[in-house]
Amino acid sequence: MQVFRRDREFVLRLDAGEELFDSLASLARSEQLRAGVIVEGIGMLSRARLGYWNGREYAPRELTTPHELVALHGSLAEADGAPSLHLHAALAGPDHTVVGGHLLDGRVGLLAEIYLVTFGGGRFGRPLDESRGLRTLDLCPGPAGTG
Amino acid sequence: MQVFRRDREFVLRLDAGEELFDSLASLARSEQLRAGVIVEGIGMLSRARLGYWNGREYAPRELTTPHELVALHGSLAEADGAPSLHLHAALAGPDHTVVGGHLLDGRVGLLAEIYLVTFGGGRFGRPLDESRGLRTLDLCPGPAGTG
Amino acid sequence: MQVFRRDREFVLRLDAGEELFDSLASLARSEQLRAGVIVEGIGMLSRARLGYWNGREYAPRELTTPHELVALHGSLAEADGAPSLHLHAALAGPDHTVVGGHLLDGRVGLLAEIYLVTFGGGRFGRPLDESRGLRTLDLCPGPAGTG
Repeated sequence: MQVFRRDREFVLRLDAGEELFDSLASLARSEQLRAGVIVEGIGMLSRARLGYWNGREYAPRELTTPHELVALHGSLAEADGAPSLHLHAALAGPDHTVVGGHLLDGRVGLLAEIYLVTFGGGRFGRPLDESRGLRTLDLCPGPAGTG
Repeated sequence: MQVFRRDREFVLRLDAGEELFDSLASLARSEQLRAGVIVEGIGMLSRARLGYWNGREYAPRELTTPHELVALHGSLAEADGAPSLHLHAALAGPDHTVVGGHLLDGRVGLLAEIYLVTFGGGRFGRPLDESRGLRTLDLCPGPAGTG
Repeated sequence: MQVFRRDREFVLRLDAGEELFDSLASLARSEQLRAGVIVEGIGMLSRARLGYWNGREYAPRELTTPHELVALHGSLAEADGAPSLHLHAALAGPDHTVVGGHLLDGRVGLLAEIYLVTFGGGRFGRPLDESRGLRTLDLCPGPAGTG
């Protein structure tokens, strides 16, 4: 990963073989980023797993052929003391049709270019919403609100 | 709606049942926002109405099953003294295929996370282009240019 | 093209008939922009050419009917002393289905609204990766690194 930083903004170039979630989480840990927005990302993913929330779970779809990454957006928070990423993606296949959804997993193909804006001093949480069975973004967690 | 504000940037969490246009317009009114960009948004919409401009009108498509919101972008201006939003969206259904277009209407499902950048002092307009029958963005309206 | 500038951020309105790449490159030249992110863009394209990188070349798809532009993202760098744009796009057709990929070419239909963030002082390069046969983003080129 190559990193360009300007104050609280980051432009990242991820290289072939990198895991999207691991690389972003690793940056968040090393830079102590606790609140941010994954503003956009393009590139290519060699494989990806998309989810559709059906009310109980993420119905998955595995993409094993490389796809052009045409949209990548989401948020960076902290949950249980670790970086928590929520990403959605749209991906175009060899015939240029687009599939998308909640991104469960993604490995960079050729490369990925990602733009990240962070809010130093801010602290987003992602507590478990027990009634629904998933974590949801909390923009203003109190001192004990990140668990 | 939960709001995180940092100077002229906003991160919003909209909750189940909120109308996208109403919530954004309401924020624009209360914060007196007259120029901005809806930079990105993800989440889920429980229903949405998409349009395709065919030269005369927006050919509509109603989505009544929940869809993952994979792209949401647009602009915030002022027209006739009221907030004017122009939004495009891409949405993934249960089979992960993506539909999209001009967003005519959208109701938040589980939640939506939206990133908004505004330009205090700026004033975008959306005057009616009579020859085409629709309003188009004007980035530098004069004192009387918002009508 | 109408331009709203706030420090190092630009909101652009491109008008019918403008070529996306020409207009952005022209702005980059006149404003001497050497590093930036095309954060988002919406609008309509009257025609577009999408590519899918198959490992050797961009397999093209020509769109000759107008499409709603639902996602436009990418980076602005400099290569061989000229602006170098890398753009991906997602486009919705008359039936609202979405196609996308690497954008090879695009002509604005009704209009396009684009948000661009630049990094003055920064300098992104796009050197040729000879082993792969394409140019890839370099975020931190040295004095001779833009070729």
